[in-house]
Amino acid sequence: MLVLGGVRSGKSRYAEGLAGNHRGPVTVLATGTAGDAEMERRIALHRARRPAAWAVVEEPLDLAGALEHCDAAGGLVLIECLTLWLTNLLCDPEPERLARERARLLAAWPTLRGDVIAVSNEVGLGIVPANALARRFMDEAGELHQALAAQSDQVVTLMAGLPLKLKGA
Amino acid sequence: MLVLGGVRSGKSRYAEGLAGNHRGPVTVLATGTAGDAEMERRIALHRARRPAAWAVVEEPLDLAGALEHCDAAGGLVLIECLTLWLTNLLCDPEPERLARERARLLAAWPTLRGDVIAVSNEVGLGIVPANALARRFMDEAGELHQALAAQSDQVVTLMAGLPLKLKGA
Amino acid sequence: MLVLGGVRSGKSRYAEGLAGNHRGPVTVLATGTAGDAEMERRIALHRARRPAAWAVVEEPLDLAGALEHCDAAGGLVLIECLTLWLTNLLCDPEPERLARERARLLAAWPTLRGDVIAVSNEVGLGIVPANALARRFMDEAGELHQALAAQSDQVVTLMAGLPLKLKGA
Repeated sequence: MLVLGGVRSGKSRYAEGLAGNHRGPVTVLATGTAGDAEMERRIALHRARRPAAWAVVEEPLDLAGALEHCDAAGGLVLIECLTLWLTNLLCDPEPERLARERARLLAAWPTLRGDVIAVSNEVGLGIVPANALARRFMDEAGELHQALAAQSDQVVTLMAGLPLKLKGA
Repeated sequence: MLVLGGVRSGKSRYAEGLAGNHRGPVTVLATGTAGDAEMERRIALHRARRPAAWAVVEEPLDLAGALEHCDAAGGLVLIECLTLWLTNLLCDPEPERLARERARLLAAWPTLRGDVIAVSNEVGLGIVPANALARRFMDEAGELHQALAAQSDQVVTLMAGLPLKLKGA
Repeated sequence: MLVLGGVRSGKSRYAEGLAGNHRGPVTVLATGTAGDAEMERRIALHRARRPAAWAVVEEPLDLAGALEHCDAAGGLVLIECLTLWLTNLLCDPEPERLARERARLLAAWPTLRGDVIAVSNEVGLGIVPANALARRFMDEAGELHQALAAQSDQVVTLMAGLPLKLKGA
């Protein structure tokens, strides 16, 4: 399942709510790295909101590997979030890494046995920025969402904390 | 009721249409202040479109107070718009004012007796800007929309002048 | 029919899919001009995806004229895209040209005999940019979408490659 939405649209809260209703164990796959104080605060806020029983695995780059590992352990995996992972890969010194990791994620996605909820920022509905990296990020995020959505059972977008179904029951 | 939408999505026109179908008197609670020529032009455009019978109350900061006052007078209150009010508070010399006014608005919201339609800009679906104030504005707008939407009977978002129901009948 | 969506939302792919199911001939009305290498790459990508049998007419400014000409020839016309046409007009040395061409397009729209699918970028859901030209572009795009949507049988917006109906069956 893919949960999309803008900044502070309630997408994480919604995904966490779904995960909280899951019977089995929950593993949060956190991709964000606390590069500055603001990021640290955002990560701490997310952490404080989650049940203590949920396992947390941090992996900024090898998302496919970490996802397969968490999925093999059973239960539900909650990925927070795809856009931070994309950002990490765009900033990686090895320029080919993004394409490689992306291909690995798309290959792994349909083979997972348990439930997976991936949270991601929708960033493509504003003015196209002059900055080339921001433009590349928009393109990569949009392409990734399309590719994952095509292989997902459910896709939902949030606005003002309210879900809008794009795919699935 | 909360009416969201991007720039020139038709959200004001839609809200004004709903207000126009209301049986009782209509009060427009205008939060914008004409800081420059462009803003002045936008405000004049809105004003020209509205029926002359509608009362207009201008209040850039104390939205909760003005809303309770208008509501007590009876009829429908049309707030244009929440994002300009947020902008005014973010620019206020007193840094705690935003949190205080926000808490007052959220406390007043469920106590209102008449119908209220609040128009607000959805700004969280583009690239996250480098500017810290713009980022804070995105966060504040998103949190406010979530909090008000949770307490509203109806939430609608507009695109190309067309409404999409997010909550309510 | 109007097909809206953000950057890499799958709007062109969706519109091309609809056009591909059409029985009659298809003419692509391309408004983009290859001003730089990135734009050239994007145009080449679109071209490579389309069936070879489709005719392509390039017209950066006189969209109404080209549309009437293509429509008179019969079949379906696929406009890619309105936002590039708006960009071309905003950059035109004659400042009144945009208003004139826009009026001509809106006058032509309801008179067309065949099916028309117009693809356009939704750009109004991010932070309002400091740049005045970008702000004007947002306004013009939003107004154009509203005006065309009001006169269209179907309006759809795409997210993550998935359509969301805004108007029509």
